[in-house]
Amino acid sequence: MQIVYSADHARQHGRGELTDGRLMPVVEKPARAEMVLKRAQEVGLGDIMPPRDFGREALVRIHRPDYLAFLEGAWAEWEAERGGETDCLPLIWPVRNLRAVCPTHIDGKVSYYALDAGTPITPGTWTAARASANVAMTAADLVADGTRAAFALGRPPGHHATADQLGGYCFLNNAALAAQRLLDRGAERVAVLDVDYHHGNGTQAIFEDRADVLFCSLHADPKQEFPYFLGHADETGTGAGEGYTVNAPLPWGTTAEAWMAALERLCQRIESYAPDALVVSLGVDTYKGDPISRFALDTSDFPPIGARLAKLALPTTFVMEGGYAVEEIGVNAVGVLQGFEGG
Amino acid sequence: MQIVYSADHARQHGRGELTDGRLMPVVEKPARAEMVLKRAQEVGLGDIMPPRDFGREALVRIHRPDYLAFLEGAWAEWEAERGGETDCLPLIWPVRNLRAVCPTHIDGKVSYYALDAGTPITPGTWTAARASANVAMTAADLVADGTRAAFALGRPPGHHATADQLGGYCFLNNAALAAQRLLDRGAERVAVLDVDYHHGNGTQAIFEDRADVLFCSLHADPKQEFPYFLGHADETGTGAGEGYTVNAPLPWGTTAEAWMAALERLCQRIESYAPDALVVSLGVDTYKGDPISRFALDTSDFPPIGARLAKLALPTTFVMEGGYAVEEIGVNAVGVLQGFEGG
Repeated sequence: MQIVYSADHARQHGRGELTDGRLMPVVEKPARAEMVLKRAQEVGLGDIMPPRDFGREALVRIHRPDYLAFLEGAWAEWEAERGGETDCLPLIWPVRNLRAVCPTHIDGKVSYYALDAGTPITPGTWTAARASANVAMTAADLVADGTRAAFALGRPPGHHATADQLGGYCFLNNAALAAQRLLDRGAERVAVLDVDYHHGNGTQAIFEDRADVLFCSLHADPKQEFPYFLGHADETGTGAGEGYTVNAPLPWGTTAEAWMAALERLCQRIESYAPDALVVSLGVDTYKGDPISRFALDTSDFPPIGARLAKLALPTTFVMEGGYAVEEIGVNAVGVLQGFEGG
Repeated sequence: MQIVYSADHARQHGRGELTDGRLMPVVEKPARAEMVLKRAQEVGLGDIMPPRDFGREALVRIHRPDYLAFLEGAWAEWEAERGGETDCLPLIWPVRNLRAVCPTHIDGKVSYYALDAGTPITPGTWTAARASANVAMTAADLVADGTRAAFALGRPPGHHATADQLGGYCFLNNAALAAQRLLDRGAERVAVLDVDYHHGNGTQAIFEDRADVLFCSLHADPKQEFPYFLGHADETGTGAGEGYTVNAPLPWGTTAEAWMAALERLCQRIESYAPDALVVSLGVDTYKGDPISRFALDTSDFPPIGARLAKLALPTTFVMEGGYAVEEIGVNAVGVLQGFEGG
């Protein structure tokens, strides 16, 4: 399997995320991608190539120009205001009873563009996020060029980012950019399957009103888990996109058996949609040892996921999302891809 | 001037607020109220009495029952989930592209009911917030009974709290509860004048669609300052409340002269409204030495504020809000009240 990778991911290394009432070291860290790369090399998963730069014109296919301008300039504004000793974090949010009008001060701007307090903007965020987006779009291009499957080994992840919001460690929505790239290269319909433990709220929000992208996600029930405010079963799309969003929320403790049964239902929905290409938001935080998640999949459960996806017989772009058990992230993520190759 | 005070305010003593990308000691702390009390005693401002308990039936005149139930039980839920080593803080917010549906897990619930990450729920929050609300309503009752003016010396403050949201160090909207109490005791129209440095977004949101409460606020421009997402001049009320919200946003560095000119305009609007009673949200973070604010009022500028308010010749309930220069908060807040008494 062709692998796309950029060492620029390491430029995103946040110092603190607000969790459990504390600022804790960010669990979404460079070692994650390095462990996946190491494992891919160990097992000879495939050639590794760098991304090409798709430029801003590709990003605005999914993201709002004002949001991109904010992301590009945020660190400099933050540093000018109060030095670089801390990462840039928001402190209030434009929730109900407030107006979503963007302020001029950096504290207000980051509060306008963020959906959580766990996604610090650092000196290298813009570089790393663009690299991760380019990695995903390069992988999509390989698939558009005829490669059966490609693996976008990038970080920061993307599936929580909306057209104009960062959150959940995500800044640019890599999977959405990959799906859009496939459409722009000629696909008429693309399915995005999100197998991360957390609901891909950003991807859903981006495509909810469109019929040319089917968004399917199985994830921890948002009543219990981040992102809490999207991912319910009754969200089925809006307008022209009605019927093209499918959510399978699952309770804490979900076993591989129950998880695979939900995957089967989503795969059947994808088959009935008959897309031209598939994008997989590949999170492996469904692993039983994941430090921030509560599903029960074991390492041996990951290759069968890939095998089932292979049976869809679709040109497939895998985009790396979550997975925070650093020691096991490589064997688990690569396990899915090996299962796909063998399936 | 009759003063209402409860030592229960000290039960709210948060450990950390998210500001400048750090969890910092909360600036809204018990010493604030203690310094104001000490100064009031020093100058013999008036008798000090405890609040009476108005019970939940008074709180639901302003706040949603589900929010009150959350506030009452939040600490126990938080402690059961992860012990009491940290205060309860949210981590994500139901902003645009997400659904404002309340989750079941405490992390999701506090994220649903909070508007910022600076308002920690502690073991004593519910006790302190109720005491502060009772202090405000007791002061309003004194005024309803015929006292010319009363001072609700409470904390935590209230003007950022909405019907169902905590934020900006506020949990229950003491000024709104006082205004409602005055209406429930027979007033037909009440004016709320908010002189705190920060916009009273909660009070505005609570009364924006009502004509029986005129809400007037002068504050730092929300484009530059917390709460960032409300307090613009073009917010004038909604529905039946159209024309009964008046905002005077002022830039950083505003001097006493410019501030007093804005106050004069608001006082004239109050005069034309001809209310039966006045509630003053008394913040003194307009002081030049305030650690989190950027106006330029000096200690000598506070008595003239009270003198101007006295000229309105209205039964007046002063409700303590912000002011974080602890050494000066007593002389500045009591200075307003002395100016009122002498005016």
